[in-house]
Amino acid sequence: MKAISSRENPLYKELKLLASSSQARRKAGRTLLDGVHLCEAYLQHGRLPLFCIVSEGSAVHPEAAAIVQRCEVAKVPCIVLPESLFHPLSQVEHGVGLLFVVDTPHLAVPENLTRSAVLLDNLQDPGNLGSILRSAAAAGIEDVFCSKTTVFAWSPKVLRAGMGAHFLLNIFDNVDLQLLVGSAHVPILATSSHAEKRIYDLDLKRPVAWLFGHEGQGVSQELLDLASCRVSIPHLGGVESLNVAASAAVCFFEQVRQKTA
Amino acid sequence: MKAISSRENPLYKELKLLASSSQARRKAGRTLLDGVHLCEAYLQHGRLPLFCIVSEGSAVHPEAAAIVQRCEVAKVPCIVLPESLFHPLSQVEHGVGLLFVVDTPHLAVPENLTRSAVLLDNLQDPGNLGSILRSAAAAGIEDVFCSKTTVFAWSPKVLRAGMGAHFLLNIFDNVDLQLLVGSAHVPILATSSHAEKRIYDLDLKRPVAWLFGHEGQGVSQELLDLASCRVSIPHLGGVESLNVAASAAVCFFEQVRQKTA
Repeated sequence: MKAISSRENPLYKELKLLASSSQARRKAGRTLLDGVHLCEAYLQHGRLPLFCIVSEGSAVHPEAAAIVQRCEVAKVPCIVLPESLFHPLSQVEHGVGLLFVVDTPHLAVPENLTRSAVLLDNLQDPGNLGSILRSAAAAGIEDVFCSKTTVFAWSPKVLRAGMGAHFLLNIFDNVDLQLLVGSAHVPILATSSHAEKRIYDLDLKRPVAWLFGHEGQGVSQELLDLASCRVSIPHLGGVESLNVAASAAVCFFEQVRQKTA
Repeated sequence: MKAISSRENPLYKELKLLASSSQARRKAGRTLLDGVHLCEAYLQHGRLPLFCIVSEGSAVHPEAAAIVQRCEVAKVPCIVLPESLFHPLSQVEHGVGLLFVVDTPHLAVPENLTRSAVLLDNLQDPGNLGSILRSAAAAGIEDVFCSKTTVFAWSPKVLRAGMGAHFLLNIFDNVDLQLLVGSAHVPILATSSHAEKRIYDLDLKRPVAWLFGHEGQGVSQELLDLASCRVSIPHLGGVESLNVAASAAVCFFEQVRQKTA
């Protein structure tokens, strides 16, 4: 295990950039996995990081030590940092100080939508995106398409909220959703509190694509006009709308209910 | 409208405390509603704030001015602050600078649970709590019981995520959930990924109480042992669990589906 103790070290400078800048992560095609849970999930999915970074204090922690050992056996460069250098890289407070540097997958967008998917138009909140990815993975949906204006899926906050769902999904970035929706071979369903058709009245055993949008403004009008169907989640109370991640979970699991009925 | 320009003003000092400290909010029995949307929702529910606070720059904004005027007509003290004093009070960036100071309701816990409810044990994330309140209100559930260790429902972050759901619900704070569960007249349902009984196989047309817990550790063992039934949300993917707010939404809206079927 190599030690880095200078803030001027080029690799450390790269780590600082990856920790702080979404633009840097997109440009480098790399991101940081923060904490034992995410790093373990990454290894469990048969992938190896580019670097394994551990804080001095955590190097002796059994869970971290086991992961470092697995990395060393697999010839992954492992680096130990003093707490003062590790701290600015991590968003996990009071946790075990462990980070992976990993490549973010860059997937070519398929020409046509032919199976169940999630389409995200201008979604802003990292916690919402992480929750939607987690729900999609739990519901057996494999493909997620994010518009250019949607928060970057491989940012540390989204990764934390996703709890490892990223590694099970095909996440397509920077997607022209209008093009995708226009050529889709599956129904595109957009939720709207004003729609007459209820999600419970749809046949969701067949593949469908769910379209969700911005937390405040919803899906853009251009995309709504292209969608096959606007559907509603019936409400019983005095509130007119749900949080977008809650809404997505209700839709995905109505699909699961119908499929497993 | 009165102007305050000194940081040493006693009311301003109180506002700063309410903005920054959950403990101060609990002690004072007061909180801040941040932004036009929440303030409007509060007025729409027939309630009046103790104070209406507006930033100098926003006093001329049509939406803010309309709210200030409604407050002045109702003899609510209205206060204008320079941006430099307003900014530290608000968490809404780039928004209209408007705040209400309001009393937080302190409700006596009923002796028995007799209707549908949500019980929250040691829930930590403000965004999750806000989303759960919003989903409960949309699903027509009126009572929410929070354990002492659950994040304070009337904190600005929870209020923001709740989007006005707070004003439709009875939110009971500091509740001894073991006592409540022990004397409940409705089934207490705790979700668990290991449970054999699926939520879809339950009769949810009758009143039930949903029990959710800590984001990482779930519901405490003591409470789980007291619950009537452990139920699962069936999964189709490789992820074993959902975000707690996503999970709650799926449960609440399965209840709505059955009730509206």
